[in-house]
Amino acid sequence: VKTVNIDMAQVEKGGHRHFMAKEIAEQPTVLGDALAHYLRGDGIELPQPGLDFADFDRVVMVACGTANYACVVAKYWFEQIAGVSVEVDIASEFRYREPPIGPRTLALFVSQSGETADTLAALRYCEGKAAKIVSVVNVTESSIARESDLVLPIRAGAEIGVASTKAFTCQLTVLFLLALQAAVDRKRLEPDELEANLNNLRHLPGLMNFAIAQSGEIAAVAKSVSEARDVLFLGRGAMFPLALEGALKLKEISYIHAEGYASGELKHGPIALVDKTVPVIVLAPTDNLFDKTVSNMQEVMARGGKVLLVTDPKGARAAADGCWKTLIMPEVPPVLAPILYALPAQLLAYHAAVAKGTDVDQPRNLAKSVTVE
Amino acid sequence: VKTVNIDMAQVEKGGHRHFMAKEIAEQPTVLGDALAHYLRGDGIELPQPGLDFADFDRVVMVACGTANYACVVAKYWFEQIAGVSVEVDIASEFRYREPPIGPRTLALFVSQSGETADTLAALRYCEGKAAKIVSVVNVTESSIARESDLVLPIRAGAEIGVASTKAFTCQLTVLFLLALQAAVDRKRLEPDELEANLNNLRHLPGLMNFAIAQSGEIAAVAKSVSEARDVLFLGRGAMFPLALEGALKLKEISYIHAEGYASGELKHGPIALVDKTVPVIVLAPTDNLFDKTVSNMQEVMARGGKVLLVTDPKGARAAADGCWKTLIMPEVPPVLAPILYALPAQLLAYHAAVAKGTDVDQPRNLAKSVTVE
Repeated sequence: VKTVNIDMAQVEKGGHRHFMAKEIAEQPTVLGDALAHYLRGDGIELPQPGLDFADFDRVVMVACGTANYACVVAKYWFEQIAGVSVEVDIASEFRYREPPIGPRTLALFVSQSGETADTLAALRYCEGKAAKIVSVVNVTESSIARESDLVLPIRAGAEIGVASTKAFTCQLTVLFLLALQAAVDRKRLEPDELEANLNNLRHLPGLMNFAIAQSGEIAAVAKSVSEARDVLFLGRGAMFPLALEGALKLKEISYIHAEGYASGELKHGPIALVDKTVPVIVLAPTDNLFDKTVSNMQEVMARGGKVLLVTDPKGARAAADGCWKTLIMPEVPPVLAPILYALPAQLLAYHAAVAKGTDVDQPRNLAKSVTVE
Repeated sequence: VKTVNIDMAQVEKGGHRHFMAKEIAEQPTVLGDALAHYLRGDGIELPQPGLDFADFDRVVMVACGTANYACVVAKYWFEQIAGVSVEVDIASEFRYREPPIGPRTLALFVSQSGETADTLAALRYCEGKAAKIVSVVNVTESSIARESDLVLPIRAGAEIGVASTKAFTCQLTVLFLLALQAAVDRKRLEPDELEANLNNLRHLPGLMNFAIAQSGEIAAVAKSVSEARDVLFLGRGAMFPLALEGALKLKEISYIHAEGYASGELKHGPIALVDKTVPVIVLAPTDNLFDKTVSNMQEVMARGGKVLLVTDPKGARAAADGCWKTLIMPEVPPVLAPILYALPAQLLAYHAAVAKGTDVDQPRNLAKSVTVE
């Protein structure tokens, strides 16, 4: 048994009805804090002993649940920004499938608690095989942190709600910084490009405030969504893992059977589910894949499906016609959209659960930290 | 417009009510035919110009829908048997995410029709980047086959039902043979181990007949499943992609919202969905992960969930207590279980669709071959 000191003031609900609401609302603040922790002058400062991505050919990222979806988003970033191959796996699968790990592989583990049993076992599998073991955790006095060569704290503060919210966006932020650092180390990013990215990140807490300000509008939509038994989430590119995360949030706290899909896979099966009782939530900022996603969305509408489009003002002008509902997020550089769009997904699940009257902070059958297999 | 010659005798239903039923029943025959095509004396003979897996460090596999799940199964085989890293991706994602492809990467594409638009585009992305382009197709006069360095036909014969069945098990068989060949090339398999594996494969059509003989029993269970609105499929290791495929089959033709999950991920969210209205189908041959899967299954039962356990006689003796229903498959070497267990998953979806009265061979909203994005 281990005693952890928790500042009780820090874990109160601060005027919110649920810890989850408080933790969603805290995101602009904790994200700003995480940035302050990692940014120095015009660059990124990793904790000691640091890392040089020129030493690695490949990154393996392992996690469970929401943290695993953060890794899938990061895969897009690492590959596109830093040109390094990334493999992502679920910890419970990774640990048993005897994956080959070469001496130029960086193994990275993400866990809010730092105690997730399967993730810890996966880390131990990599010991002595991977070049370096890095962990991205919220609790830095944890087993996973202790057994890592380098620990990257996400600085989210205590997360009490069982459904992870601020830990997810802080994990994404730290992973994005790491992808930028990898690109710098591998000479794939000029100083002015790094600076532009860091500036965009600094604006993100402000954009998050705009997203949170839509909470009332999202609550109205969520009331309708809460009446559905089944929901699909769609996204392309780095919005695909966001679709998975949006579906997971809704499952966890509202018990609605939501499922996330890559938009391009819709025609390979799940579109058979579409009828007017299944809301289809499309996460589509205006990026280079926007037209493709809209075309998949139109197939849903042509088959009688009702679409909730989450997009920006430009996307709404281009594609809101015929949608059941539209939620408008502020414009954001496409690479950062997965962090911003996490908020409407969280708020939608939160308000759907409140509308259904479920126990938001302690959903049935779930524990905050999964310390058994 | 291209005219394809089809032998009409070959495409008739041969006494079955639906093409899908005929195609499920054909699997022992076509699988035997595929084996006869690839096995020569005591070894595997690939078509010209062949391949040497000593030339590759990494395999990238790309496909859509069911073919993508065949690739996920194959990843377990390639990594465990041949020690080669495999990355699997959905074609619609792969083609746009700028994945790094090195000169020692083999790129492999799986498509029944050989015309899947996203898979073809993914193949073209790899041209000039990958060391070799290999395709696993049913239709050998197809665009994907034409643009490959090596074509591996699956020899399934014409598949008419929109939901893929015999193409899936033939894809798996060809991918298993390729994994064995990779292990031979990389000096990871002794001649006697190869022989043992090939002998096991030769027994598979016979075991499939036993699985098909349970069609009546599966139909009885499927009638109850057809009344559910939501279903979960669980599996571990190479049975995880089978859980995904089982769920996809049920979605496609019965319009039931089924979702596949890695058993170990259950506690990270989806277990919140579990109540007595959601059947949980557990695919669990007795392999080295059996006890872990059973422990996840017991968590489902402890929360009031009703479990349909698909296992072998030994597994049923060990774990059937407390399950809602049990389906018993013949004993099979664990490495081949994903091929055999595809059949009860297909039969369950088929009979559920028949019970619901949906159009089994032409499900709503779906096309056999997805030749647009």
